[in-house]
Amino acid sequence: MKFFYDIKAAYRNDPALRGSPFSVLEIILYQGLYAIFFHRLAHWLWQYKIPFIPRLISQISRFLTGIEIHPGAKIDRGFFIDHGMGVVIGETAEIGENVLIYHEVTLGGLSLNTGKRHPTIGNNVIIGAGAKLFGPLTVGDNSQIGGGAVIVKDVPPNSVAVGNPGKVVKLDGEKIME
Amino acid sequence: MKFFYDIKAAYRNDPALRGSPFSVLEIILYQGLYAIFFHRLAHWLWQYKIPFIPRLISQISRFLTGIEIHPGAKIDRGFFIDHGMGVVIGETAEIGENVLIYHEVTLGGLSLNTGKRHPTIGNNVIIGAGAKLFGPLTVGDNSQIGGGAVIVKDVPPNSVAVGNPGKVVKLDGEKIME
Amino acid sequence: MKFFYDIKAAYRNDPALRGSPFSVLEIILYQGLYAIFFHRLAHWLWQYKIPFIPRLISQISRFLTGIEIHPGAKIDRGFFIDHGMGVVIGETAEIGENVLIYHEVTLGGLSLNTGKRHPTIGNNVIIGAGAKLFGPLTVGDNSQIGGGAVIVKDVPPNSVAVGNPGKVVKLDGEKIME
Repeated sequence: MKFFYDIKAAYRNDPALRGSPFSVLEIILYQGLYAIFFHRLAHWLWQYKIPFIPRLISQISRFLTGIEIHPGAKIDRGFFIDHGMGVVIGETAEIGENVLIYHEVTLGGLSLNTGKRHPTIGNNVIIGAGAKLFGPLTVGDNSQIGGGAVIVKDVPPNSVAVGNPGKVVKLDGEKIME
Repeated sequence: MKFFYDIKAAYRNDPALRGSPFSVLEIILYQGLYAIFFHRLAHWLWQYKIPFIPRLISQISRFLTGIEIHPGAKIDRGFFIDHGMGVVIGETAEIGENVLIYHEVTLGGLSLNTGKRHPTIGNNVIIGAGAKLFGPLTVGDNSQIGGGAVIVKDVPPNSVAVGNPGKVVKLDGEKIME
Repeated sequence: MKFFYDIKAAYRNDPALRGSPFSVLEIILYQGLYAIFFHRLAHWLWQYKIPFIPRLISQISRFLTGIEIHPGAKIDRGFFIDHGMGVVIGETAEIGENVLIYHEVTLGGLSLNTGKRHPTIGNNVIIGAGAKLFGPLTVGDNSQIGGGAVIVKDVPPNSVAVGNPGKVVKLDGEKIME
């Protein structure tokens, strides 16, 4: 059950929650968890080609949480969205295990054609607040995208990318000069 | 009737909608359309100098859709806002025909004086997610502003501007070097 | 009473409000004021170590206003948030007197450790729409952070910082070259 791992991810990834003596109760205040729960339901219906209802669930979730995930997006277990307001995840996005994203992250498209047009995110990736990733690019396992970065090309595994336009500034723990 | 063209713009601009066999029904899920509808109403009342009600409509729309458009903003037909959460359009902004903007776009001001202080956007312009345009600048017809770009100067027609600080990187289809 | 100064700050900082003949009525439409009011209440309870309720108030406020302020954040009087959708202010953030911030501003953390991990903002600071400040940095009195700027280092007093990565471009009214 993927959602169990999503709840565990919330505890792992939020210091304000971990530091609280009432964290068992406070977990119900996490909008990101509701958004993921709604998405798991919407995506399940989507897979069986149920019409309209998945998109309706997605939009109800957007109204309640400020997070918009298209029902078609494939998201593996242990996914956590912190704060979450303004997050948009497109129809053909794919997200690996134990990924952590913050508010205002966009996994968006660059063209108005149909077909694969949204990013593929590896395992254990962290994407900072306000980062925008556009197009069918790949972010490798264990990489980090800095807050506010704008990424339109592939990001290799074990790297750090920041800035606008976005650049890889660290790879395998070593700084990269231009 | 401008709003008829706004609905057509939604079909033209969203591949997820065009690809859906239930697009006639799904159109009711588009928050951007509600925001534009509320704005057309608020702006109509604003023109007759009705007090308070236009701003109230604008704030109800913001609560329902996450999109905040000041009733004073002048927006031509065929306008579409995709996703839309976090969009802010200022009082003296002007927007041409068939403009497409994404979530978290700001058409904002640079000063706290009254008077014209927000951008003027030409026809057929596309503004990517998270782009911020500040001040009484002009974006020419058919231009594109990249996602996350921060623009404080005029952008010529038929060009592409990206980055922060924002730069024109393409003009009339040709790349521009620095 | 801090909240009285917050209301005065709204009039001082929004030209659209100042320009309106119905500004006494329109003040009730300002989401930023509600968010600050909720925060003042939540922070008061937080100081007495009341469990759960402060965070619940914070999340109700987020649902109603799109603005998320952790109850632990210390905010001095005369604070105003304009538009506000997507604002996130972290648990250990500290904000001086007469600070003005816009929508989608983040005062966030860089690490997942507990302890001081969010910015400290001086008096009379203005932070533009979409700016992201990460880590336990300090922004000096009277400084301005440009819209969309990404800041991870200290910003001196009386300066202007813009861009991504963010740079100080003005200090004491003089332009800085690189």
